[in-house]
Amino acid sequence: MFDYISSFEHAISALKHEQRYRVFVDLERRAGQFPHAIWNGPDGRRDVVVWCSNDYLGMGQHPKVIEAMCRAARSMGAGAGGTRNISGTNRALVQLEAEIADLHCKQAALVFTSGYVSNQTGIATLARLLPDCLILSDALNHNSMIEGVRAAGCAKEIWRHNDVEHLEQLLSRAAPGRPKLIVFESVYSMDGDVAPIKQICDLADRYEAMTYLDEVHAVGMYGPRGAGIAERDGIMDRIDIVEGTLAKAFGTLGGYIAGRSAVIDAVRSHAPGFIFTTALPPAVAAAATASIAHLKASHCERVAQRMSVAATKSALRKAGLPVMPTETHIVPVMVGDPELCRQASDLLLDQCGIYIQPINYPTVPKGTERLRITPTPAHDARLVEQLADSMVWVWRQLGLPLTKRHRPLDRPELTVAAAGYSAASASSRIRTF
Amino acid sequence: MFDYISSFEHAISALKHEQRYRVFVDLERRAGQFPHAIWNGPDGRRDVVVWCSNDYLGMGQHPKVIEAMCRAARSMGAGAGGTRNISGTNRALVQLEAEIADLHCKQAALVFTSGYVSNQTGIATLARLLPDCLILSDALNHNSMIEGVRAAGCAKEIWRHNDVEHLEQLLSRAAPGRPKLIVFESVYSMDGDVAPIKQICDLADRYEAMTYLDEVHAVGMYGPRGAGIAERDGIMDRIDIVEGTLAKAFGTLGGYIAGRSAVIDAVRSHAPGFIFTTALPPAVAAAATASIAHLKASHCERVAQRMSVAATKSALRKAGLPVMPTETHIVPVMVGDPELCRQASDLLLDQCGIYIQPINYPTVPKGTERLRITPTPAHDARLVEQLADSMVWVWRQLGLPLTKRHRPLDRPELTVAAAGYSAASASSRIRTF
Ligand SMILES: Cc1ncc(COP(=O)(O)O)c(C=O)c1O
Ligand SMILES: Cc1ncc(COP(=O)(O)O)c(C=O)c1O
Repeated sequence: MFDYISSFEHAISALKHEQRYRVFVDLERRAGQFPHAIWNGPDGRRDVVVWCSNDYLGMGQHPKVIEAMCRAARSMGAGAGGTRNISGTNRALVQLEAEIADLHCKQAALVFTSGYVSNQTGIATLARLLPDCLILSDALNHNSMIEGVRAAGCAKEIWRHNDVEHLEQLLSRAAPGRPKLIVFESVYSMDGDVAPIKQICDLADRYEAMTYLDEVHAVGMYGPRGAGIAERDGIMDRIDIVEGTLAKAFGTLGGYIAGRSAVIDAVRSHAPGFIFTTALPPAVAAAATASIAHLKASHCERVAQRMSVAATKSALRKAGLPVMPTETHIVPVMVGDPELCRQASDLLLDQCGIYIQPINYPTVPKGTERLRITPTPAHDARLVEQLADSMVWVWRQLGLPLTKRHRPLDRPELTVAAAGYSAASASSRIRTF
Repeated sequence: MFDYISSFEHAISALKHEQRYRVFVDLERRAGQFPHAIWNGPDGRRDVVVWCSNDYLGMGQHPKVIEAMCRAARSMGAGAGGTRNISGTNRALVQLEAEIADLHCKQAALVFTSGYVSNQTGIATLARLLPDCLILSDALNHNSMIEGVRAAGCAKEIWRHNDVEHLEQLLSRAAPGRPKLIVFESVYSMDGDVAPIKQICDLADRYEAMTYLDEVHAVGMYGPRGAGIAERDGIMDRIDIVEGTLAKAFGTLGGYIAGRSAVIDAVRSHAPGFIFTTALPPAVAAAATASIAHLKASHCERVAQRMSVAATKSALRKAGLPVMPTETHIVPVMVGDPELCRQASDLLLDQCGIYIQPINYPTVPKGTERLRITPTPAHDARLVEQLADSMVWVWRQLGLPLTKRHRPLDRPELTVAAAGYSAASASSRIRTF
């Protein structure tokens, strides 16, 4: 007889063997006290500072956003109650789609249950609606885009990451009248680098291709109204379909695409991952709308994030830590080994009350394992200092290379107390030595 | 040059031509006043009674559920802020998974952003982890399961809907030692029929196959604690993996699988649709937990639903309407033509203030177009009477066959007023004639 359970057990031991088994960190974020959170760890509840959240601007704790969520839940209930077509289209969702279309200056927008689903069913559907479509996909595209390309079932070419010459080669090889879809991201979330959007659009024009741009790690944060890198660069109108998430800088849940009405309507009418699933709850949609609307008009979150990012990069560099150069809000610090990366993360969490998840293969290539840090407006100067000191201490503990000698030799004091958050319980629970 | 936009426009006109183009009904449900809602239609806001919600028990408006959502949003914020692995695992979600595992008496459970994603990435991942797996899939399985089977990329056999003899044939043909996964639903949502779960489990035992059961349209509603049909029939322990949604009878959003720890851990560690997407917000998770916990202990919702369903079936049958026989809470009324089905729905909405979405191809086979009615505990006797009278009136308007003559000849009075909901505005806005 086939032994099912040991098949699954084998799959898990293989991961453990490769240092790829993931233990989730059970967190309780506290609205009003970001980036502080309670970690429900093996030794009980402990206070930690989260340095790896994708709630990049802390909008998840914004009173307007929380209030919009509660108000909608109280007035319209906790769920949508149906698929979009069968009783699930709710007012809040219709308003959200209008807000998104306006944000990106597009004719229409369509909301999905996640950014993942937007890409997966969105790309697949767009390509299926174009006869004999050729998809040109950046080599480092996110898994959701890869799954979308796969599900499209059409021909594809992978161009070397951000390499427009390679893209041009592939475009020039394809038959001129053939429909082509170029899919790529603006900010790549693990390296924090940015695509040459303008040049890609130039190529799309020249070779008559459609452009599909994932701005998941840019919306809310770049451009005068937070519409992303294409807005910042003044080329939003050159993107045919923009895709984004409501779950990162906008602090809630859901994803979307925006573009011309005919395109959006065709996806709305054909995408299985959109049609056959319950719509987002009005409470989530209302919260997302409040967040987008706020960030369209308010700059202080973006300014504060930029300051916090600059301060963090500078402090870590000064401390001799191997910060990977980025022009964005993503601050990766290279470790280059899966086991050491995990140990660094464990030490930071256990000994310093700092939570930064290790990023290992397959999220990044082997040998480029890293700690990925995302400073938010709520990470103040004291927290930045604590971070730099703690990381240097960890680097020394593990014998990881630092570019120069650094002052403190002892494990730095926790600043949890300084932030005024459960100071007593924090210091009593975290071991000192 | 290839004309992209007209490709998409053609796709839409084709749908319109086939009467398959869908216009979403923009609703504003009012918590505390289900099944009443405000319809934002072409002529402005109007009060309607929703008869096609999958919030089957009205839990979306349950004060405990709404309160849990608001409390969690206030204390933990509006979003999770990350994928499950990178800072997105929140306390509320961990508690929800424990609640679900307990509900189904399984070792572990895993929550996804939707029931759709659970099936799609869950089935694909399970099958990929079993070498040379053969999937046996019921012919009427939901699109999310079909997409999961497709993404698995392994061999598959489709067995005729609920036909255990055919299933046995296919099982007996497969090599004995080969891993096999039988995927099926308990309640099929468009016909309201129920799978012969026990017999399927007997076959699974005989042919050493794993069972994967979608209880999306049964959880909350069947069994002493609302764990579904398998619980009702006392055979929960014979199901290897149960899949469910939090977005129908539980009234919120999200989906899940539950099973043995090794199985769940393997899916957790390998499923792309689980790994690479933001986790559910704590507020949604807390609302779902409150709903499940309530329905584990409370029977009155299930009892009231059953009474409402019985009353509706009986009233429609007495009125001579072609109710399809079902043993479940789903009450399909056959029309058999896409255009007439849409017209019936339009007349009900425009003239009677009753919202029932037409169900056309591809959701159901051509020639079996229908109105699908889902009575909830909040649909009282007056609303049932209004429904029967309105449908008879519509059937006559459209020349659809009734099995016998029926009393009222005029369009029935609206009962919106009787339900105490915006009576004045409702009657002033809905045309009488
Ligand atoms: C580039 C990219 N696209 C899409 C997604 C998916 O977005 P969501 O978390 O809303 O599913 C992610 C990350 O989760 C991402 O990094
Ligand atoms: C049988 C079945 N499985 C899964 C789903 C998807 O569940 P969800 O709405 O939570 O995505 C549905 C309907 O939406 C369904 O009918």
